[in-house]
Amino acid sequence: MKNLLIVALLWQSAGYCQRPPAPFYEDTNNAPVSPEIHADRTVTFRLFAPKASEVLLMGSPGILEFIKKPMPLVKGEKGVWSLTVGPLPAGFYTYGYAIDGGLRMPDPSNPNLEVRRWGPTSLFTVPGAEKAVFEERSVPHGTVHLEFYDSANLKTGRMVYVYTPPGYERGKQKYPILYLLHGNGQIEASWTWTGRANVILDNLLAEGKIKPMIVVMPYGHVQREIKAAPTTNDPMTIEKELLSAIKPMVEGKYRVMGDRKNRAIGGLSMGAGQSMAIGLHNLDQFAYIAAFSGGGNRTEWEKADAAVLNQKLKVLWIGCGTEDPGFNGVKAMDDLLTKMSVKHVWNQSEGGHSWPNWQVYLSKYAPLLFRN
Amino acid sequence: MKNLLIVALLWQSAGYCQRPPAPFYEDTNNAPVSPEIHADRTVTFRLFAPKASEVLLMGSPGILEFIKKPMPLVKGEKGVWSLTVGPLPAGFYTYGYAIDGGLRMPDPSNPNLEVRRWGPTSLFTVPGAEKAVFEERSVPHGTVHLEFYDSANLKTGRMVYVYTPPGYERGKQKYPILYLLHGNGQIEASWTWTGRANVILDNLLAEGKIKPMIVVMPYGHVQREIKAAPTTNDPMTIEKELLSAIKPMVEGKYRVMGDRKNRAIGGLSMGAGQSMAIGLHNLDQFAYIAAFSGGGNRTEWEKADAAVLNQKLKVLWIGCGTEDPGFNGVKAMDDLLTKMSVKHVWNQSEGGHSWPNWQVYLSKYAPLLFRN
Repeated sequence: MKNLLIVALLWQSAGYCQRPPAPFYEDTNNAPVSPEIHADRTVTFRLFAPKASEVLLMGSPGILEFIKKPMPLVKGEKGVWSLTVGPLPAGFYTYGYAIDGGLRMPDPSNPNLEVRRWGPTSLFTVPGAEKAVFEERSVPHGTVHLEFYDSANLKTGRMVYVYTPPGYERGKQKYPILYLLHGNGQIEASWTWTGRANVILDNLLAEGKIKPMIVVMPYGHVQREIKAAPTTNDPMTIEKELLSAIKPMVEGKYRVMGDRKNRAIGGLSMGAGQSMAIGLHNLDQFAYIAAFSGGGNRTEWEKADAAVLNQKLKVLWIGCGTEDPGFNGVKAMDDLLTKMSVKHVWNQSEGGHSWPNWQVYLSKYAPLLFRN
Repeated sequence: MKNLLIVALLWQSAGYCQRPPAPFYEDTNNAPVSPEIHADRTVTFRLFAPKASEVLLMGSPGILEFIKKPMPLVKGEKGVWSLTVGPLPAGFYTYGYAIDGGLRMPDPSNPNLEVRRWGPTSLFTVPGAEKAVFEERSVPHGTVHLEFYDSANLKTGRMVYVYTPPGYERGKQKYPILYLLHGNGQIEASWTWTGRANVILDNLLAEGKIKPMIVVMPYGHVQREIKAAPTTNDPMTIEKELLSAIKPMVEGKYRVMGDRKNRAIGGLSMGAGQSMAIGLHNLDQFAYIAAFSGGGNRTEWEKADAAVLNQKLKVLWIGCGTEDPGFNGVKAMDDLLTKMSVKHVWNQSEGGHSWPNWQVYLSKYAPLLFRN
């Protein structure tokens, strides 16, 4: 212990770990612990905001499900506001604050962020008795690759995340491939950084529930920056980008089987619509389509030939939470497919337009892939 | 145009891109454009904060160099505060806001974040006439790999970022390896997500300035979460983790030459101290050491044998900015090494404890590596 102290003192004297003098941005002295997840699964949120007149725990019915409406934090000592909620079911949650009725922000005490195309939001996990499918376990781990390429279509550098299963580097065999698309406002990192798709796939593979597969996670918007509403013609251009730029790049670099029976697509929200469009337009290339919390364009689908769809598609998977604001639109696609006698899986769940559903949907869709 | 409108309407009717109803967290209607980088290289910052009484553009002399002290934004119409600064030199900048004297936050309009062990800060780039070394160019791109492993030392899952140069997948040859360490409060993603080390290396390689190399970027803290001050005994345990867990894992998986003449270490700030310690303790394994904006433990170094150091170390590289709050400590290491007649490179620059210096330091250190 004495040695440690000496090391610590020498360390300081050597300028090691030197912090800049005040005022510094990350004022950890003022940063209360937040969120604090208690043993009884209640959660305390805290924010240092000495001059604020109102601090609300924020979300929406779609994005944040552990509160149904904004909840006020209470001002306590030394300018720290706090609120305890729960007990909450074990799971994965996102939240943010609204200050004085206007200013939205993530929790500055919490380094766990969903990084998005617009500002970030905060996230936390309430652990359960058993590790959830998105929680890292001591199993063989795949690798996530960040691939950079220059898009001729989009006249800019782009990035694609690619998951390879454990052992990919050591073998010679070829793999089936899943294109996994994110939602509006999310980015190419979202499925791994926030959704932990790689952890889910590692866990499912360790349990023998899925075939080993390569998963490609591209960026789903045409424009990098968001200044206004999303451009509604995104999916068409993203279809071109996916098929003419990303697919040749990735499938040329990684060992993939390369036939339609070994190629799937799926996505969440905006990515659900993109998957339904790209899959439908390219049945010669995809035998599997999934739409998580998004239904796709019914006007286009009702013109399709049900016999062709049933012959070509091994799995057409659609899921939505009953609390999702878009539930009726997604259910209408299920109803249309049923009316058309198009074989499909309809997965209705509780919950809303949120990662807990998308994580479960991936864990249900992936085991159905590449079975014949 | 009419077709686009129809597509847009169908899209809406299909529940595609459905946004949750108000109140939603990301209130893009209220989000002003910020930062706005004008053609004359002035930059306008804006924040929607209708009830705030004070909004300051924040930083520290070490972290943020384009202002020397907090600067007030001025309240304008509709609750939007703004401030224009500059013109600024072309470069890479970080900033944040302080609200009402207490609340620190990143810019909610700006999706470009430095994600850290504590809360995030915002960043932007002012483009210059020529692309800076950290700006993506149309050159062959390497790949960044996220490797996951279960640490026996630390009893937890950990992550390592690994850069491989362009063409790594297609060849059979072995590569030299650089271990590149981050600073206090940063994470394993920092050197790529914020520092853009992969872009820098791609650019240097395309210019023929560096040997192709593998770069390993581990997580530099023992504990994942920060609740208080960093533990001062981190570096010793990180040394053990690096040598007993990360090195065998990475060097077993990637094609590396594996001898000391083809193995380098370097880091910034806390990672500078770690590199100086790990390198000194393991001269049989490292022939190159770099310390960016950190000096290491002089008490330990002054006990070393200068003749051994001069025989073993191909390059010992130390750099610091004159505005860095730790400058004197780092300069003292330079002075000690000079007094000891230990061959080394001393790189004194302008600027402070910040990414612009670390990016330039990497671009100066990397070309010196693996030359014989």
